[in-house]
Amino acid sequence: MPEKARIGLDLFGGDNAPMSNLEGAIFALKNNLIDEVHLIGGEENLRNKIPENLHNKIKFIKAENSVDNHTKPTEVLKLKNSSIYIGNEMMKKGQLDAFVSAGNTGALLAAGTFVTGRIEGIDRPALVIPLPGKNGPRVLVDGGANAELKPAHYISLAKEGIAFAKFLGKKNPKVHILNIGTEETKGTKIVKDAAEFLKKDDKINYAGFIEGRNIFDENVDVIVTDGFTGNNILKTIEGTAYYILSELKREVSNGGIFTKIGAMLMKNSLKGLKKSLDYRQYGGTFFLGINGILVKAHGSSDSEAISNALFVANKAVKDKIIDKIKDML
Amino acid sequence: MPEKARIGLDLFGGDNAPMSNLEGAIFALKNNLIDEVHLIGGEENLRNKIPENLHNKIKFIKAENSVDNHTKPTEVLKLKNSSIYIGNEMMKKGQLDAFVSAGNTGALLAAGTFVTGRIEGIDRPALVIPLPGKNGPRVLVDGGANAELKPAHYISLAKEGIAFAKFLGKKNPKVHILNIGTEETKGTKIVKDAAEFLKKDDKINYAGFIEGRNIFDENVDVIVTDGFTGNNILKTIEGTAYYILSELKREVSNGGIFTKIGAMLMKNSLKGLKKSLDYRQYGGTFFLGINGILVKAHGSSDSEAISNALFVANKAVKDKIIDKIKDML
Repeated sequence: MPEKARIGLDLFGGDNAPMSNLEGAIFALKNNLIDEVHLIGGEENLRNKIPENLHNKIKFIKAENSVDNHTKPTEVLKLKNSSIYIGNEMMKKGQLDAFVSAGNTGALLAAGTFVTGRIEGIDRPALVIPLPGKNGPRVLVDGGANAELKPAHYISLAKEGIAFAKFLGKKNPKVHILNIGTEETKGTKIVKDAAEFLKKDDKINYAGFIEGRNIFDENVDVIVTDGFTGNNILKTIEGTAYYILSELKREVSNGGIFTKIGAMLMKNSLKGLKKSLDYRQYGGTFFLGINGILVKAHGSSDSEAISNALFVANKAVKDKIIDKIKDML
Repeated sequence: MPEKARIGLDLFGGDNAPMSNLEGAIFALKNNLIDEVHLIGGEENLRNKIPENLHNKIKFIKAENSVDNHTKPTEVLKLKNSSIYIGNEMMKKGQLDAFVSAGNTGALLAAGTFVTGRIEGIDRPALVIPLPGKNGPRVLVDGGANAELKPAHYISLAKEGIAFAKFLGKKNPKVHILNIGTEETKGTKIVKDAAEFLKKDDKINYAGFIEGRNIFDENVDVIVTDGFTGNNILKTIEGTAYYILSELKREVSNGGIFTKIGAMLMKNSLKGLKKSLDYRQYGGTFFLGINGILVKAHGSSDSEAISNALFVANKAVKDKIIDKIKDML
């Protein structure tokens, strides 16, 4: 572990690339959120956009902007000059400690899995997602990397989730499997068999099945599910929150003057509500289980989101999140 | 189709049975929401609790209270004197047009499938759930009856969903399949193959994949998914809505006097919000695809919920919802 964390940033990925990405990197450096950044896809001619006193903390790595949202995941393995390939290759070679990209998720996962490579003993790397909830954050895994899973794969997912829950400050995190009922007889054969695997592993504090209605309850740490269900769940949470807030707005705009005054008086509370629902407050989405720290920033990331993703990547390097996984194998 | 719809009500099912069930039936009759009710599990000694002028609209059918929440689904097929078995048997024999129960869901589905029996040409009956959303209700199917499905089964689900969307007043309802992306290449082999089946069926207005974040959007009519995902989605919506409203409460109670005044002024809007999220406003949950109208009332139903379930069952009889399905086969 180097004293300084070397964080790579994909300058091409994301809807607002490259400027938001560059600005996010500058902000993170200015505020000492990271030690140094490698701008992958960056040309030396960008140097004049960077404050002089930060020059020694930024490195430029040439790369092609050859992956877009239509690139099929495995295609990236042939695009060896793409920023996504190069970022992962540098992790593999030990030239980077972490890599942040807001680019094509599928391509990023493929490059993570096949270029950086899996941790030995982990058979399914997965997207690990922080969620808000009562008494603090919790972790959902898999957020969409593996649409289909075999029961034994839940062991990998559980350990990735535990490592991330510890990263978020949880002690001895409990692991639940998402299911359509909490009784042991409920659900598909896959989740029932998965439960048996988790029960038997003494590195996993297995706590039984959990239903979707209890995701935000107190005392929930890690929720494990397949990537198809997990991705659908995440997007449903997003859709439900958006719908509720838009209904609230509609009620206010249909309401009388007192309602409108009421909404004005409640403005700060409503802002607080929005903030408490924003999972980005807990940092980016990690692709855990590979032998490097890969952070997926949202495709629509602005400079603040990029800066935040760089910060959590840096923190994960310092907290040795990969060692936390290896300790459980 | 008889002029009077004969609705059966399970007097035993539900947390507040039998009194809430009985009160719900009385309320529905008093307000002419239904024509007549068969109280399954009712004893003649209940007659003194019923207003005299309703006596001719209520029939008592003896049954045993032998199914509880621990009864395994298929066990009910041996419990031939249970209210759930008898209600379905009466539908099978043409003695009832619809049956409403707040009892054990699994047992109810098993009795519906094997006692009442499937509609010929439907290979998977499913739970059809009305959801709120922009510009009115939409339908999610399967809400949890079939945890695992083959691609061809999506045809049954789509047709059940279409029939229910028509019941809710939609013209030529569109059908979406829930998936983790809208591109045709996304998702599991099952949903991709299911899409091909729906495309080919000219009775289905197939509109492509939909993501969880768009469930509440305008122009969404029918969303088809397997019962494992569907049930998880429904419970996640419930959990998210509950969490958001409780966070809002917390923000208000942590807020100052102005926030509290604001909340008071917004009281009606917040009530309106709560109501717009309550899917019960659109009626009960139907188990469609069997040769009878089976309505599942929520386990925690109060008399109002029971009355509402009886009302929608009655309406489904009058609207000939089963014929709507048969027309598509």
